[in-house]
Amino acid sequence: MSHTALIETLGRQAREASLVLATAETSRKNAALTRLAELLTERVDVILVANERDIAAATAAGLAKPMVERLTLNKKRIAALAESVRQVAALPDPVGQELERTTRPNGLDIRKVSVPIGVVAIIYESRPNVTIECAVLCLKSGNACILRGGKEAFETNTVLAALCSEALAASGLPAHAVQFVPTADRAALLPLLKLDPYIHCIIPRGGEALIRFVAENATIPVIKHFKGVCTIYVDRDADAALAEKIVLNAKTQRPGVCNAAENLFIHQDAAAKLLPKLAHALAEKNVELRADPAALKLLQKEKDLKVVAAGGEDFSTEYLDLIMAVKVVPNLDAAIADINRYGSGHSDAIVTRDEKAAQKFLAGVDSATVYWNASTRFTDGFEFGLGAEIGISTDRLHARGPMGLRELCTYKYIIRGNGQIRE
Amino acid sequence: MSHTALIETLGRQAREASLVLATAETSRKNAALTRLAELLTERVDVILVANERDIAAATAAGLAKPMVERLTLNKKRIAALAESVRQVAALPDPVGQELERTTRPNGLDIRKVSVPIGVVAIIYESRPNVTIECAVLCLKSGNACILRGGKEAFETNTVLAALCSEALAASGLPAHAVQFVPTADRAALLPLLKLDPYIHCIIPRGGEALIRFVAENATIPVIKHFKGVCTIYVDRDADAALAEKIVLNAKTQRPGVCNAAENLFIHQDAAAKLLPKLAHALAEKNVELRADPAALKLLQKEKDLKVVAAGGEDFSTEYLDLIMAVKVVPNLDAAIADINRYGSGHSDAIVTRDEKAAQKFLAGVDSATVYWNASTRFTDGFEFGLGAEIGISTDRLHARGPMGLRELCTYKYIIRGNGQIRE
Repeated sequence: MSHTALIETLGRQAREASLVLATAETSRKNAALTRLAELLTERVDVILVANERDIAAATAAGLAKPMVERLTLNKKRIAALAESVRQVAALPDPVGQELERTTRPNGLDIRKVSVPIGVVAIIYESRPNVTIECAVLCLKSGNACILRGGKEAFETNTVLAALCSEALAASGLPAHAVQFVPTADRAALLPLLKLDPYIHCIIPRGGEALIRFVAENATIPVIKHFKGVCTIYVDRDADAALAEKIVLNAKTQRPGVCNAAENLFIHQDAAAKLLPKLAHALAEKNVELRADPAALKLLQKEKDLKVVAAGGEDFSTEYLDLIMAVKVVPNLDAAIADINRYGSGHSDAIVTRDEKAAQKFLAGVDSATVYWNASTRFTDGFEFGLGAEIGISTDRLHARGPMGLRELCTYKYIIRGNGQIRE
Repeated sequence: MSHTALIETLGRQAREASLVLATAETSRKNAALTRLAELLTERVDVILVANERDIAAATAAGLAKPMVERLTLNKKRIAALAESVRQVAALPDPVGQELERTTRPNGLDIRKVSVPIGVVAIIYESRPNVTIECAVLCLKSGNACILRGGKEAFETNTVLAALCSEALAASGLPAHAVQFVPTADRAALLPLLKLDPYIHCIIPRGGEALIRFVAENATIPVIKHFKGVCTIYVDRDADAALAEKIVLNAKTQRPGVCNAAENLFIHQDAAAKLLPKLAHALAEKNVELRADPAALKLLQKEKDLKVVAAGGEDFSTEYLDLIMAVKVVPNLDAAIADINRYGSGHSDAIVTRDEKAAQKFLAGVDSATVYWNASTRFTDGFEFGLGAEIGISTDRLHARGPMGLRELCTYKYIIRGNGQIRE
């Protein structure tokens, strides 16, 4: 079968499954989830055999060690995965919620009700847990999904997706509601991106190159989960201890994630007093500082502090590492303008005691999530209380910021009349 | 200037304007709208001169008469346009609404607040009113817009957009918040579709070919306003008079619009009794019927009734004309399946007295708007009470069905803390 024909078959099967799943009872979906959690435990050996094949192939191909580590499952990780499936089963069903209701003067009763999107394709890299996490969130929200994982985890993903199908079938739901693309060939990606009769939404999760490729080639709506170039702005009137605590947390608590801070902006009136102290604290945590001329001038005088000059790209780079770009700004307006220019619209914070300045920052910074006196690290579905997260959208349409079960739904208008016609 | 450079300039200007407009006070936006309504009246002669140039060019180029008619403005139409602008000024501001608020156990105060999308590009054909309608809805919702109209109305659109800019400037808002692409050259369209750093959403309004071109080439999220292949399903237990009233209204009250019905499905147990009567009523209104074999068999016996056999494409065609495809279905499930297969997910209705059947239909038909005992013609922003409408989305993400001011907004999370960090 050609890739195009194969993908079209997956799409048609997914669409058919989605129509059944869309009206499935909550108890049935939860039964499938519970069964999946059991299967992950019962079949742990089968999963590990497949995972070992992936690891052996990756190692033979010379994949970097951290990548092989990301690929690796073990009994503990699989048990944690099973537990996360049970947690999703325990969450409320996002489908069938009445979002609004109006009765029009002509008597028409208009209800706006949440329904699944339909068929969601998720394109991701390496970590095989993503297969289960995405399948489970789609299932709970009544969406059929087509999963396309990285070639490194192909064997593991295939087994995990098969367990999802088995759990669905065991609960009387269509097995095709979860399908994994059964080839690692890159050529299968393009037809998937163009299958608009059957797929309603594509969520790419991965590096910038992958996301760009998807956005450029898809004819289907895409919700991008792009990079996080997050900034902490320390205002003129910031509390020094609070600023240090927040900057350190946002930069160093887990530098490899999208809600970690990459930039530190500081008001010029506060810079002389606060910046050296902040810089030393960051240096102690092994953070490399890249400073603009004004910051460099201030920090070069400091003993035991290594600072380099920031280059042209530094303030718009997602380091995902212990590196921070530092800049002295003349005022709040300049800080807001620079964040809107250099940032990625993900998460940005102001540290200040000045409520008026904070209000201006919160309104003026055009990002999905804006913070006053808190770390950017809280941009996360669990921290927001969504109970789950399929990712963090850097797009503005449909979902912005953390995407939970509710964001995997759309709505329909259900209208009851008694013979109304339009005059 | 090359088309790419020109479009990039428009985009950068729009983005800058959008950041100002996003936090503009309601009173200022309304002042701009009120001034625009005045300008439309004050400058009616300038508008009509430009419109006459468009009409002359279109007539010389041999444009069909109905198209020239759609292009034509006159004092009465312009006065109505000014009135519609005043109506939008009177609507509530959709920006800054608190959609949700939670306080997390760690004390973080998370507010989800409506904000403008940012920069919206609207690509449309012929009618110059659309320029004002779209500009006004974008302005009210705090979005900057880039408008790309059809070449036939180029002169008129240019004047109308200039009036929008004048009204904005007169109210202290950035003139670039409304920009019309200053060339009718087709080559300017492609760079517009790929300007993702500056444009956040594209809304194409027009024929299928235009919408497909936009969806295939845009790297920016698109909200499609596609065709309406709407079906009325007359159930076994339908009231005959109600069925006739609804079918006639949905098909004939205004056949050229997307929420008019194109298909009539009827339960086999009701067909013998109801279909001939319905067919005669439709024929009296000059509706041409295209019937599947079972319907044809029933209707061929009728005197004074011309019915043709339906072809392969008939049940998925948007006629926008006095034509209706008719089909006898074995049961409710078949009706639902056929609507999901042939329809465009726009608006579909069931006529029945059976509440259980209605519930099944309303849940199972995967369309933006589903009706029980009412005409599909109500799918419309004004009829829904939205106060305005930029179109009817046939997409599922972000907006589904009628799109009003609220659907021109996204949201952001505004979070207040007192030093929270992630452990």
